[in-house]
Amino acid sequence: MKKYSAILIIFLTSCGAFCTAQTSQISIVEDFKPSTVNQPGQEYPQVNSQGYARFQIKAPDAKSVVVSLGLGGAKGGTELFKGENGFWTGTTAGSMDEGFHYYHVTVDGGVFNDPGALNFYGSTRWESGIEIPAHDQEFYALKNVPHGHVQQILFPSKSTNTSRRAYVYTPPSYSKEQSKRFPVLYLQHGWGEDETAWSNQGRVNLIMDNLIAEGKIKPFIIVMTYGMTNEIKWGGMASFKIEPFQTVLVDELIPYVDANFRTIANQPNRAMAGLSMGGMETHTITLNKPDVFSQYALLSGGIYTPEEIKDKSKVKLIFISCGSRENPDRVQTAVKGLKEAGLNAVSYVSDQTGHEFQTWRRSLKELAPLLFKN
Amino acid sequence: MKKYSAILIIFLTSCGAFCTAQTSQISIVEDFKPSTVNQPGQEYPQVNSQGYARFQIKAPDAKSVVVSLGLGGAKGGTELFKGENGFWTGTTAGSMDEGFHYYHVTVDGGVFNDPGALNFYGSTRWESGIEIPAHDQEFYALKNVPHGHVQQILFPSKSTNTSRRAYVYTPPSYSKEQSKRFPVLYLQHGWGEDETAWSNQGRVNLIMDNLIAEGKIKPFIIVMTYGMTNEIKWGGMASFKIEPFQTVLVDELIPYVDANFRTIANQPNRAMAGLSMGGMETHTITLNKPDVFSQYALLSGGIYTPEEIKDKSKVKLIFISCGSRENPDRVQTAVKGLKEAGLNAVSYVSDQTGHEFQTWRRSLKELAPLLFKN
Repeated sequence: MKKYSAILIIFLTSCGAFCTAQTSQISIVEDFKPSTVNQPGQEYPQVNSQGYARFQIKAPDAKSVVVSLGLGGAKGGTELFKGENGFWTGTTAGSMDEGFHYYHVTVDGGVFNDPGALNFYGSTRWESGIEIPAHDQEFYALKNVPHGHVQQILFPSKSTNTSRRAYVYTPPSYSKEQSKRFPVLYLQHGWGEDETAWSNQGRVNLIMDNLIAEGKIKPFIIVMTYGMTNEIKWGGMASFKIEPFQTVLVDELIPYVDANFRTIANQPNRAMAGLSMGGMETHTITLNKPDVFSQYALLSGGIYTPEEIKDKSKVKLIFISCGSRENPDRVQTAVKGLKEAGLNAVSYVSDQTGHEFQTWRRSLKELAPLLFKN
Repeated sequence: MKKYSAILIIFLTSCGAFCTAQTSQISIVEDFKPSTVNQPGQEYPQVNSQGYARFQIKAPDAKSVVVSLGLGGAKGGTELFKGENGFWTGTTAGSMDEGFHYYHVTVDGGVFNDPGALNFYGSTRWESGIEIPAHDQEFYALKNVPHGHVQQILFPSKSTNTSRRAYVYTPPSYSKEQSKRFPVLYLQHGWGEDETAWSNQGRVNLIMDNLIAEGKIKPFIIVMTYGMTNEIKWGGMASFKIEPFQTVLVDELIPYVDANFRTIANQPNRAMAGLSMGGMETHTITLNKPDVFSQYALLSGGIYTPEEIKDKSKVKLIFISCGSRENPDRVQTAVKGLKEAGLNAVSYVSDQTGHEFQTWRRSLKELAPLLFKN
């Protein structure tokens, strides 16, 4: 259990956008545009070509407005300043990392979301989100290609005595080829997130649609459900028991998916992946259930060691990734060891990103072509 | 066009929760519980057995916190008062109408959402929502019955040069009986809302699941997309042109749905319904396209007159409803006239509700058994 405590610290303290903003003397280019994940018609927050973010919040009678994103001064984050029109405005002290970031606004000591931004489930609540345009953003852009569907399902769960929610991505060909069956990837979110994270902030459906349109992958189904991780508090990792979630996933969700979707319902055609704490869950469950999954992926979520793999013939792929601002040496060393032990292992390090969704979007793009190869 | 201006005024001024709160001298029963649409683990907002709502917002340095819901004093809504712990608390001055209400919080002059509540798209933005338990809430409760799926689709739209989003409810039997085909209801939201409204605040999937489980309806598919209504501002109704949305719906969405879902793709098996401004859209499009839809429903969204129906043999059902706090006489008189003209018309008035989602949830429950009867 000590191992998990150590992993939790890595999960929760890795540098995200907060600590990577670059303070600099270069001048700010005034080409700010609304973030692509703003609410309809909202002008703020904005982002410029250098990756600076600018916020504007109306609160005419407030004494203090601070945004949690960015490298700020004494107050942390980005302090906003009040204009004569009652709007508070402020710009990050430097460029933010490319990709998606969560944030919130503190108004007179109360924590609220930015009324201009869409909300995304992270930190065990719906938070504001902002997109810093990335040099490689085409791979998760909405394009004029055939689109798969994302289905909300409610599956019966006897062990938790309720109907539980999951989202299922089906590729474009699923609704066209009514007799074809597909492999399945079970894909987990991280701590503080839920089953909406991979399709909302992760853009899993657009990443898949684009890869399929380019002929880079064999179409497969992706299933995302809540990993029951959010009861874990700081330092409480040792008390986390995998069994309740493993039961939901293996004994309840998988049979429901196999009964209600045209899956290829066997071990060679079933993979599991997870980010951060979802990686820890993937690690434990794949090792506990070698006859259920054949392909494993940990995204910023720990490593496998060769000694852990009891029957190497049952493992077709191990994929381990992280951001360059995390601990890439650990990932690369682990994969080297797995390869030396005769396993099909692949590492990936996302350049200039931390423990955030841009790392995981890229990881999925790298992982998908490796899955279900034969 | 004058007619539509009059309808818009009805849409936007009908009494909702704001004006129906009852001021009274009765004492408040202290059995408050968290609203069922709170964010995970959040204790506030709360509701008691009398339908009073209580709010609590942390903002230790604020000067004023007001919730837009409820019949308040000079400030409108419900004024909150600061406690020693930095939390502002307040209770509505009376019982709220049963069902779902939108609201927001004004903190020192800035408009924010309540951090305790889930958000729902209304008023052209994501707003806080609260549920006042209703005496008939079982019909939209999550129960241990087979559940249909709600699919997010992205369909190609040449006329608007993008991929547009819609949600598709498929009944539980859709994924089980792989050769069966189903009729389709196209169901529109109101002004300020979008394609998420019917499944989030409307609970369309649970209403359908429960009706199907009770054997009260023939299973059918429901398709919900954005009605492009939110460009309309106060008094701008005369400038609303139906053609852009009619093209998206009839020439782009319907062919996509018929190609990608197992529909019965003909007029007798296609219905259209809408609430409020979605009713106006339904009214216009069904009259423009009598060979596309055979069954029409307006929920708090105007009426049909016999003179408007050119070929009565093509219309299998007209359903018109509203809340008792709206204009039920107009609905009942219209349906009487339609019946006298030989049409199969049905009226429904939701008791003790206004221009809000409880009226529309109940309307759907009444409408569904009447659709696709043969």
